[in-house]
Amino acid sequence: MKIALAQLNYHIGNFDGNVARIIKHIERARNDGADLVCFGELAVCGYPPRDFLEFRNFIGLCTEAVETIREASGGIAVVVGAPVVNPVVEGKDLFNAAIFIEDQEIKHVQHKALLPTYDIFDEYRYFEPGSEFKTVLFNGKRIALTICEDIWNIGNENPLYVTCPLDNMIDQKPDFIINISASPFSYDHAEKRLEVIRENCLRYGIPMFYVNHIGAQTEIIFDGGSVVMGPGGKIYEEMPYFQEYYKVFGLDDVIKERQSVQQPKNKILEIHDALVLGIHDYFGKLGFSKVVIGLSGGIDSAVTTVLAVEALGVDNVRVLLMPSQFSSQHSIDDSIRLAENLGIQYDIIKIEDVYHEYMETLKPIFGDMPFNLAEENLQARIRGMLLMAVSNKFGHIVLNTSNKSEAAVGYGTLYGDMCGGLSVIGDVYKTEVYELAHYINRHEEVIPEHIITKPPSAELRPNQKDTDSLPPYEDLDEILKEYIEERLGPEEIIANGYDAALVKRILRLVNINEFKRYQTAPALRVSSKAFGMGRRVPIVGKYLS
Amino acid sequence: MKIALAQLNYHIGNFDGNVARIIKHIERARNDGADLVCFGELAVCGYPPRDFLEFRNFIGLCTEAVETIREASGGIAVVVGAPVVNPVVEGKDLFNAAIFIEDQEIKHVQHKALLPTYDIFDEYRYFEPGSEFKTVLFNGKRIALTICEDIWNIGNENPLYVTCPLDNMIDQKPDFIINISASPFSYDHAEKRLEVIRENCLRYGIPMFYVNHIGAQTEIIFDGGSVVMGPGGKIYEEMPYFQEYYKVFGLDDVIKERQSVQQPKNKILEIHDALVLGIHDYFGKLGFSKVVIGLSGGIDSAVTTVLAVEALGVDNVRVLLMPSQFSSQHSIDDSIRLAENLGIQYDIIKIEDVYHEYMETLKPIFGDMPFNLAEENLQARIRGMLLMAVSNKFGHIVLNTSNKSEAAVGYGTLYGDMCGGLSVIGDVYKTEVYELAHYINRHEEVIPEHIITKPPSAELRPNQKDTDSLPPYEDLDEILKEYIEERLGPEEIIANGYDAALVKRILRLVNINEFKRYQTAPALRVSSKAFGMGRRVPIVGKYLS
Repeated sequence: MKIALAQLNYHIGNFDGNVARIIKHIERARNDGADLVCFGELAVCGYPPRDFLEFRNFIGLCTEAVETIREASGGIAVVVGAPVVNPVVEGKDLFNAAIFIEDQEIKHVQHKALLPTYDIFDEYRYFEPGSEFKTVLFNGKRIALTICEDIWNIGNENPLYVTCPLDNMIDQKPDFIINISASPFSYDHAEKRLEVIRENCLRYGIPMFYVNHIGAQTEIIFDGGSVVMGPGGKIYEEMPYFQEYYKVFGLDDVIKERQSVQQPKNKILEIHDALVLGIHDYFGKLGFSKVVIGLSGGIDSAVTTVLAVEALGVDNVRVLLMPSQFSSQHSIDDSIRLAENLGIQYDIIKIEDVYHEYMETLKPIFGDMPFNLAEENLQARIRGMLLMAVSNKFGHIVLNTSNKSEAAVGYGTLYGDMCGGLSVIGDVYKTEVYELAHYINRHEEVIPEHIITKPPSAELRPNQKDTDSLPPYEDLDEILKEYIEERLGPEEIIANGYDAALVKRILRLVNINEFKRYQTAPALRVSSKAFGMGRRVPIVGKYLS
Repeated sequence: MKIALAQLNYHIGNFDGNVARIIKHIERARNDGADLVCFGELAVCGYPPRDFLEFRNFIGLCTEAVETIREASGGIAVVVGAPVVNPVVEGKDLFNAAIFIEDQEIKHVQHKALLPTYDIFDEYRYFEPGSEFKTVLFNGKRIALTICEDIWNIGNENPLYVTCPLDNMIDQKPDFIINISASPFSYDHAEKRLEVIRENCLRYGIPMFYVNHIGAQTEIIFDGGSVVMGPGGKIYEEMPYFQEYYKVFGLDDVIKERQSVQQPKNKILEIHDALVLGIHDYFGKLGFSKVVIGLSGGIDSAVTTVLAVEALGVDNVRVLLMPSQFSSQHSIDDSIRLAENLGIQYDIIKIEDVYHEYMETLKPIFGDMPFNLAEENLQARIRGMLLMAVSNKFGHIVLNTSNKSEAAVGYGTLYGDMCGGLSVIGDVYKTEVYELAHYINRHEEVIPEHIITKPPSAELRPNQKDTDSLPPYEDLDEILKEYIEERLGPEEIIANGYDAALVKRILRLVNINEFKRYQTAPALRVSSKAFGMGRRVPIVGKYLS
């Protein structure tokens, strides 16, 4: 038996596009002599469709898409993910289903039983968990069909769930497992995924064909890395990350574990490629191509600009240099050098005249009150407005350049440097931004060395440095990670060796600045706990604040 | 038996404040000779605590709070809501519990069985559903303890759930039902709530003591309206909306249905009071008191300003009038008159000089390109920046004045008129804003009549009117309501009598402007489907767009 996996880039709600992509790969698989071709979870509508699932009209379009795919499946079998209506009154209205189509007939619909409802996942909001577990007989082989999370409760050891779908199917003696997934990227997730697939293969002694999505849906990035694994738990083939991929596998070869193709694992490389794909798809899927970025001379905007050039091309990236009276000459020089290294269009716009006009205009209200946060923020906001003006005039989208460390502690100006349609490095801690810069410069100096080596500064008042108000980023990032990713409490973090007053100050800053993060652009998710849809905290809360 | 209900205003994560409020009412109930006093769902930590529940430290503080309450319960019984740890490995880590304390002893812990996971609710994200249903014997009476949603599956007729907690308790012959709730306001919800309580009382033939929260937690507003109902389904007493309230009830009097105290129901009155409370609590709970608003001369900013004055007082509200070359004289005159009617501080700041300086600064980039959206947005953003400058200088919070109709179709400028810490009328359609204005003027002209009667205009170019680019608000709002609240598809809305091209254009505008709404302030929720945490849709989606 020959089984094809199609690791594709879907687009939420773009039924024509998704169906065309799926049918193209059905035809390809048929031409390649495959017996069966597998697509991802909810492939017809893209993942996650979120509250679109609550529209009957949307579900109708999903059903039509499945129908079109069914018609295109002459002479081959197809496994494709789609939401299907729950005909029983009791329970949620939908199932998250894997549909098995054989030669234009729907032979089986397997409902997802384990519905992730944590972090970015809201599946129990929409779906009734499946409770029937039937294998599919196809060309003399029995197939255990599973959907993403269904394989993540091995032997019922995952405390979140009380059902283990494969334990319920194994008595039917399946020959192999298919898992159709929409498993999002985080830099520590691929290893876990492989381990889970391995444990399943070993537990049941049969191979698994695991197909994932690739591509970004706003902030969620799917990395692909679809896997074919043999019954002995050996990787037969791991598909590439961050690109569409398609391949036909012989079942016998897989059972015999005849090869082992794996992908290199490297945190910074993966984050880099994820961010490039994230930018690329945000623009591609929204129908935009051009970007404008404010270059400050600092490392955040430098890294963001390089990533944008990789994602969209030199001709689609323009930058503005917007010095003020507090800007150092090296900030301008370093920015020009970066723009020239990249070969992108740059303009220098001084903000001083606008700034002084604001101060004149505000004089009747401000009087002789001393320079403070108001004037600092004004500079950041003038820059934001100039970027937005260029955006509106030329149809460029502003990319936000804030990193996760500053987003965490509120070290940014709302409607100023926090503006933009997409936050590129908003889930990347400052120390990781440096690692990205070094990675970018691995072959040659793309980012001028001085941008990497100089002390970070917002340059909103004379001789300002980030360390004036923040601890060194090595400490800050570690405290933040323990609080945000690991969800440790203040006592636990202090017990790990950090100054008590510092820890309390940082945790308080994180919590009182939720109002700022609430209003910022979606940030490309690369960690296991990003700000945004996967981290939901109250604004008026008084916890640790 | 005498039973006290305490309808209180909790604050998420403010354990000291919540516990002090609870203990004060325990003492009051004891002094009043009550046998039992009831507080709301998750009262110790406030509702909804959201992902704070994922912090062990936070759960530890909840446990300490319950312990403090237990110690304070000498000589009386207390029912209080709190998250409690699920000791079983399998399943979610927490239960949402009603804790029954009698004379310093925890006698029973009832777990919530029905976990709302839709709209603004994420309970299955955190909680394992309860599966044991035991009544509590107290002073010779049997009590059926339930938590909020637990009473919303009457006779298992709610399609969302498969369990009916009270059906499981009724064999134990309870004498009455207690329901501790955190049931948020929407203008159509109080009637539904009463109907559900009535159906339960009638089904089981016993009274119910239903206690709700009041107060706002960021965008979610709890209206109170706690209810005591007799076994015949007659309201014994409905507590006031939007205020803390406490009262002791004699069980025998309730059983005999000796009185019927009800609250007036009026959509616009309720929305008005909800918004005033929403503003009040946002400021009170964040520790701010002063607000700054941009007065445009239009109805949205006028209504917002009046609500702010009602919530915070005349001395805490200041407004800026920021005319441009496109502003009509009546906009300035009307705004001054409103400010004088209210007796609030106002300043007039012309934006023309700053605008011209921006155009000078941008000239090298813009050249001779014609006036377009860029210049329109620039004006809105200058105003936003001036408001933020005053905010930063004086510690005022900017209130956003966008309504739901314009938020829906993206008729607003990001970082301009869409800025602010809280969106007051972001869940109020334009036609409802007019109703609010009439309500505000019910006794005397607070909002100058001309603000209400003139055609709406953004005044960003000469002689601009909203109807230049939008249909009349009566039509727009109806189409939006059918799409957003009722989730009808385009064909269904067209079948209701609207022009096909118009419907498609409006639905497309709603969907393509999600990126703007994503970055705006939380909006006080008054409808059954508000933008924000209760409506989760993808930004890059291509559905109907």
